[in-house]
Amino acid sequence: MTADLHINQLTIIGVGLIGGSLARAARRAGICGEIVGCGRSLENLQQALELGVIDRLEQDPGRAVQGADMVVIAVPLGAMETVLRQIAPHLAVDAVVTDVGSAKTGVAATAQSVLKTQRSRFVPGHPIAGTERSGVGASFAELFQNRCVILTPLPDSDAYAVARVKALWHSCGARVVKMDIVHHDEVLAATSHLPHLLAYALVDTLARMDDSEEIFRYAAGGFRDFTRIASSDPVMWRDICLANREAIVDMLERFAKDLDALAQSVRRGDGEQLLALFSRAKAVRDQRVLED
Amino acid sequence: MTADLHINQLTIIGVGLIGGSLARAARRAGICGEIVGCGRSLENLQQALELGVIDRLEQDPGRAVQGADMVVIAVPLGAMETVLRQIAPHLAVDAVVTDVGSAKTGVAATAQSVLKTQRSRFVPGHPIAGTERSGVGASFAELFQNRCVILTPLPDSDAYAVARVKALWHSCGARVVKMDIVHHDEVLAATSHLPHLLAYALVDTLARMDDSEEIFRYAAGGFRDFTRIASSDPVMWRDICLANREAIVDMLERFAKDLDALAQSVRRGDGEQLLALFSRAKAVRDQRVLED
Repeated sequence: MTADLHINQLTIIGVGLIGGSLARAARRAGICGEIVGCGRSLENLQQALELGVIDRLEQDPGRAVQGADMVVIAVPLGAMETVLRQIAPHLAVDAVVTDVGSAKTGVAATAQSVLKTQRSRFVPGHPIAGTERSGVGASFAELFQNRCVILTPLPDSDAYAVARVKALWHSCGARVVKMDIVHHDEVLAATSHLPHLLAYALVDTLARMDDSEEIFRYAAGGFRDFTRIASSDPVMWRDICLANREAIVDMLERFAKDLDALAQSVRRGDGEQLLALFSRAKAVRDQRVLED
Repeated sequence: MTADLHINQLTIIGVGLIGGSLARAARRAGICGEIVGCGRSLENLQQALELGVIDRLEQDPGRAVQGADMVVIAVPLGAMETVLRQIAPHLAVDAVVTDVGSAKTGVAATAQSVLKTQRSRFVPGHPIAGTERSGVGASFAELFQNRCVILTPLPDSDAYAVARVKALWHSCGARVVKMDIVHHDEVLAATSHLPHLLAYALVDTLARMDDSEEIFRYAAGGFRDFTRIASSDPVMWRDICLANREAIVDMLERFAKDLDALAQSVRRGDGEQLLALFSRAKAVRDQRVLED
């Protein structure tokens, strides 16, 4: 499937958990010549160089993409427009560009307007993988193994570009699916954005209670697992909220309504309703969410 | 600390994840003569016998506690009153009784009224440990290692009984703390009951969406961790909601208010507020919730 993919120069802008893991996986797959890393933190880039994750570092995105036939932008969503503007004048005519953002409609619209004639070579992408950790130190080659990567090509996305991005992710061990871009943002608001907001909100609610120190002392394994995603990068999640506002607000409203109904069941001591809800949820969770 | 604890007959009523793990840990510590297991599911008890978790099985709680000097009740909270009524006439005069329920005020009140003259030998307890799995097959001797067990003795709890229960948990590797009983229920509503309800509610909200099959297909590791507790035993959690109604409703209301404020920040695109909240939550989570 990836036999004929060769990338002469892979430029990764944002060599963090995702960008770094992609670099490691692509190198291990033997599909790249040089891997160039770019980002704002010189310290992080130097670490990436020392770890052998990248071959060369550049701090200027324009310089970083010169000579690249594949560019992956793995920065928080709020930095996407700036990066696209910085690289646009320096992209080779046949360079394929993709990103890894968790919300896709805003990025796609920005890319369409900024990249102009090169816009057909931009393929919005989103690997459904990650951990709560950040930075190149947290990256590992296996992150995408058997994970799903969603591509949301636009009507004028060039087939060659889509095929190249697909092959890149295949080489990292991922499954690749295509999805309508608006639908992607709705699905992710439900499966990823809402849970992250709930975890952040729960930790914050407890942290602001009078006896919060004591409260956290008595948190057990369930709480630890439940709140793990609240250790995720705050800037990344601020940007996701801003980029996928409408779908996230819809999900928050839907959930708040359901939670209010649950609170009413508890308030009136309706054991039957509670048992029905918990049983339903357990059945779905056991059946549809597989443990590794 | 546990050098002088010897239990001639330890009777465990409810040989599930908690009861079974306690039996395993106590046996490994070498503090027991015979371990008698009792419960409603003959199949589960037979499995416990085959696994060597218990030495003898009894299906009748009254028979099970005959001759016991220590009785641990590890059944869902809703079954506590029935079990207490069944065992009361058969308890030896010096038998110490404890339980493991996640809410303590209701259990304590029931025990006070049902056990009458023996009530000073009842010590309400709660090990802050568990997994989302149920039944003796899920039990393991290390479950309480370095975990916290909260005892909420009542004003008339006998010091000898408290010391025996404390020594039992020490022998399982747990740390034991005493806490005011009302305060226990409030703290647990925050750290355990609220997160469980959020996880159940989230899975149920998503399960009732039109494209729910697809939604669960794109759930990643964060979602898996976040919803793990929604695989917990529904009967146990119904009973906890009924037993700790007031504190749980208080926490649900507090959380709903905070979630509404967060939704408003997202709605108006208030990046500053969002970043502040996420940063605060991440800092608290990183600092106060330790990964194993």
